Amino acid sequence: MSESLHILITGAAGMIGQKLIARLTREPRLGGKPIERLTLVDVVEPAAPNNTPFKVTSRTGDLSLPGEASAAVADSPQYVFHLAGVVSGEAETDFEKGYRVNIDGTRFLFEAIRSREGYKPRVVFTSSAAVYGGPFDGPVTDDFQLTPHSSYGVAKAIGEQWLADYSRRGFFDGVGIRLPAITVRPGKPNKAASGFFSSIIREPLAGQNAMLPISEDTLHSHASPRAAVNYLLHAATLDTSGLDQRPNLMMPAVACTIAEQIEALRKAGGDAAVARIRRVRDTLIERIVSGWPHQFEAKRALALGFVPDKSFDEIVAIHIEDELGGKAAA
Amino acid sequence: MSESLHILITGAAGMIGQKLIARLTREPRLGGKPIERLTLVDVVEPAAPNNTPFKVTSRTGDLSLPGEASAAVADSPQYVFHLAGVVSGEAETDFEKGYRVNIDGTRFLFEAIRSREGYKPRVVFTSSAAVYGGPFDGPVTDDFQLTPHSSYGVAKAIGEQWLADYSRRGFFDGVGIRLPAITVRPGKPNKAASGFFSSIIREPLAGQNAMLPISEDTLHSHASPRAAVNYLLHAATLDTSGLDQRPNLMMPAVACTIAEQIEALRKAGGDAAVARIRRVRDTLIERIVSGWPHQFEAKRALALGFVPDKSFDEIVAIHIEDELGGKAAA
Repeated sequence: MSESLHILITGAAGMIGQKLIARLTREPRLGGKPIERLTLVDVVEPAAPNNTPFKVTSRTGDLSLPGEASAAVADSPQYVFHLAGVVSGEAETDFEKGYRVNIDGTRFLFEAIRSREGYKPRVVFTSSAAVYGGPFDGPVTDDFQLTPHSSYGVAKAIGEQWLADYSRRGFFDGVGIRLPAITVRPGKPNKAASGFFSSIIREPLAGQNAMLPISEDTLHSHASPRAAVNYLLHAATLDTSGLDQRPNLMMPAVACTIAEQIEALRKAGGDAAVARIRRVRDTLIERIVSGWPHQFEAKRALALGFVPDKSFDEIVAIHIEDELGGKAAA
Repeated sequence: MSESLHILITGAAGMIGQKLIARLTREPRLGGKPIERLTLVDVVEPAAPNNTPFKVTSRTGDLSLPGEASAAVADSPQYVFHLAGVVSGEAETDFEKGYRVNIDGTRFLFEAIRSREGYKPRVVFTSSAAVYGGPFDGPVTDDFQLTPHSSYGVAKAIGEQWLADYSRRGFFDGVGIRLPAITVRPGKPNKAASGFFSSIIREPLAGQNAMLPISEDTLHSHASPRAAVNYLLHAATLDTSGLDQRPNLMMPAVACTIAEQIEALRKAGGDAAVARIRRVRDTLIERIVSGWPHQFEAKRALALGFVPDKSFDEIVAIHIEDELGGKAAA
């Protein structure tokens, strides 16, 4: 019996969701089977490409409101990519909204799956390096403690616990992936404290100035949007039998200093691009960034076949290829 | 202005709750102030001693039901001991009840506190060594990962995350204490997989036989009920400013083999008591116990002044003093 392949993506209007949809549209198979249907859910209408090789259903809905999660899984999609969530800044400024969307929304989705008789999908949950809060002493290892310093990180740590318990009990087959900083993030500059890691590459390559608020010696870890989508797809098809009741995995990342990021920019865009970086020290951003983990030793994920970007040069090349049509500003 | 000292205990009908109440009745002060009022909450009417030197209010209620948590904190008790919960065996066999009581009940209590304007009590939350699920390689250290192998452990790990976040945001001032096995547990033998650690001491000292289902070489860690109450009281009055956003602490414990437990029994009750232990191998219990952490390196708690029992001899002596009126069976 060939079962029609149906995929659900929550948070489908977000950057990673959109990248995943574009990828599935170009390569419409998962686990060796053709995709026949995609259901997209987000609080705003998720954009879907025209001419997809499969049926697309878009739902506007908030998983933390009654009935929405059940409706999202009503047709028993075999794969659930749970990307939905309020971002870290908003989860910190609006405590109630953050808890409702990030904690209750995840619980309701998991409960909606559990309550469907005979239904056991693969669930891929995007967690985050925000689950780590230190103190840090060297790279974060796979068994590093989770002491988040933000309500966003707390919600991710709680979602991970539920994912592990629901998987252990056989309610679904879950994999949680802790994403590092996604660089180069496409789009406009934003006010996120981490924004400059992307904007010092993105803006100069588009012929615009960017601000660098902290020291070039700072080490940080990155994955390209393309690598993040690869992680999602690998998590969806991974053999979970070897996860040993620990289905939440830190993803590998490229660790480099800001100086190394700038050298990668120079190789791609020349001295002219580098000259577009303005150094404007910001002690608040300095303090926030210094509280983040900067390097990860993602041994388990590497052993399980998750493939990171090769270098920051490659991360820049991916940005130019995927966002700039292969061409940086002179 | 002298504020009237009011303490709330949830799960007050349980063993630890009852021990705490008895202790506060004997020593009716906390943080250097006389206790004027105790509010007890449990799903069954909590027993309260007669002639307490303070007012006692008993509430029968389930914190996971609407309004109960708000009612429990309605008079703004300055100290909240949150002991309520479904035990590990029941949380595993009745998934929905375990999640409702252990997860929702804790969230509702924390939310009830947050929603009271100007109210910021000390909250002491009893977590458990069940938050640890291995793999283990030597003693569990303070920064050991939390990968519980039970829904009970998952609920405790989630409660810890909330406790840390609510404390970080200033909604209350929380301390979570991870209790080890409580030995010698008073009362009748029960079917808990860990039951024999207590019953091989308790039954022989009462002139009755006990069964030992696993090898005497097995190492395990214990705290007496009296030590557990000391931990609760110390957590209530601890200076939390040095917790560095990590308010959840593994408690110290006495690590010893079952053979060492038996030698402590011999010292207290003689060869006659030891002869009452029947060795009946149980491979299921063997397997369950082998999945538990056996030893803890509770450096942070020790540095913060939590005082464990001195030895298993002392644990046996406490049982004889507190439960047997100072006299073991001959």
